[in-house]
Amino acid sequence: MNAKKLAGEKAVEFIKDGMIVGLGTGSTVHWSILKLGELVKQSLTIKGVPTSKQTEQLAKELGIPLVNMSSIEQIDITIDGADEANPEFELIKGGGGALLREKMVASISKRMIVVMDETKYVAHLGKFPLPVEITQFGWEMTSKQVSTLGCEPKLRVENNLSFITDNGNYILDCHFGEILDAKRLNEELNMIPGVVENGLFVNIADTMVIGNSDGHVEIIHK
Amino acid sequence: MNAKKLAGEKAVEFIKDGMIVGLGTGSTVHWSILKLGELVKQSLTIKGVPTSKQTEQLAKELGIPLVNMSSIEQIDITIDGADEANPEFELIKGGGGALLREKMVASISKRMIVVMDETKYVAHLGKFPLPVEITQFGWEMTSKQVSTLGCEPKLRVENNLSFITDNGNYILDCHFGEILDAKRLNEELNMIPGVVENGLFVNIADTMVIGNSDGHVEIIHK
Repeated sequence: MNAKKLAGEKAVEFIKDGMIVGLGTGSTVHWSILKLGELVKQSLTIKGVPTSKQTEQLAKELGIPLVNMSSIEQIDITIDGADEANPEFELIKGGGGALLREKMVASISKRMIVVMDETKYVAHLGKFPLPVEITQFGWEMTSKQVSTLGCEPKLRVENNLSFITDNGNYILDCHFGEILDAKRLNEELNMIPGVVENGLFVNIADTMVIGNSDGHVEIIHK
Repeated sequence: MNAKKLAGEKAVEFIKDGMIVGLGTGSTVHWSILKLGELVKQSLTIKGVPTSKQTEQLAKELGIPLVNMSSIEQIDITIDGADEANPEFELIKGGGGALLREKMVASISKRMIVVMDETKYVAHLGKFPLPVEITQFGWEMTSKQVSTLGCEPKLRVENNLSFITDNGNYILDCHFGEILDAKRLNEELNMIPGVVENGLFVNIADTMVIGNSDGHVEIIHK
């Protein structure tokens, strides 16, 4: 069984007529978007807010009506994936480099549903390196300051060039080992001048939908 | 008497041979840089770290040797101005739009000396609108979230176009009225996704050099 497909499709059951829906990015939420496309073709009326150009493109192809963030007050539900999630509903996101847009969309949503396969659900965050988005100017100094929080930051590289986000910034991938206090680390990182945002999602997710390769899907509410 | 000149020149007395010096931007620190240029021509050996292209240009013209932030561990002293400063050594900066670079340089300095004329020294911060640097993407939503902290944010405009910082971001000028808890507001602002940095400097400045139009200069140490 495709655990990602199971989780992605299951989460769509929470979406009701008339909702504004944040559309995440990644291989699991991909299945949610495909399913939403099907339902929209039948009769579901929703408006989507995409978190990336990739998702925007997919939603358009499927005929899901989109709305600009600037013209709405709030999002009803966002469905998105995670690189890691723990039982406290804390997440690491940003492996794909879109953490800022994803965090903006999720943080103005009444609910965030996280879809994942069982391998992403962990007792402690931190095995996955935490992405931290930083400004290009002074990045070496910012990296030094981030390292004082207990990690070895690595500048993300793609095709031998520094990876640049949609916002024109760099990404540091930071191996912290076990992250014991995600709330505090989230705050400490964002207070460093030069740090634009980081991939820790704390007090944002409400529901986790976890697909298992044996075919069952677990739904956990906060 | 020129109160700005008095303060700017006085602050230079703290600079000693061999120091790495952060060079701020603005009409008061301008006098500090001119004075440093004089002293360098005599015999002072320092290296400067500029906070703007404008300051970089000026320092070069004066023959002040410059060093790149990437190649140093720490800055000994930064001299910079402020739009407002209170008796708790808390500042509002960023009227000129360079708050991020200024905050980065100041935050890695062992000491920050703030130079100003008496009109900038106030009992409570907040008459001057607080500049908040935000990403272009989703700026309307970020502005809404900033407004929930108790202000009416205005997108900064220059020559009928949105002002864009050196880092490619927008600036919101936020009238908060009296800011009673700068530390908390600083943290709350930086935790909003889309906020890159804000102009509150808390626990950064150590010394204030205040020029008065009657000719005397006040030096206050923390």
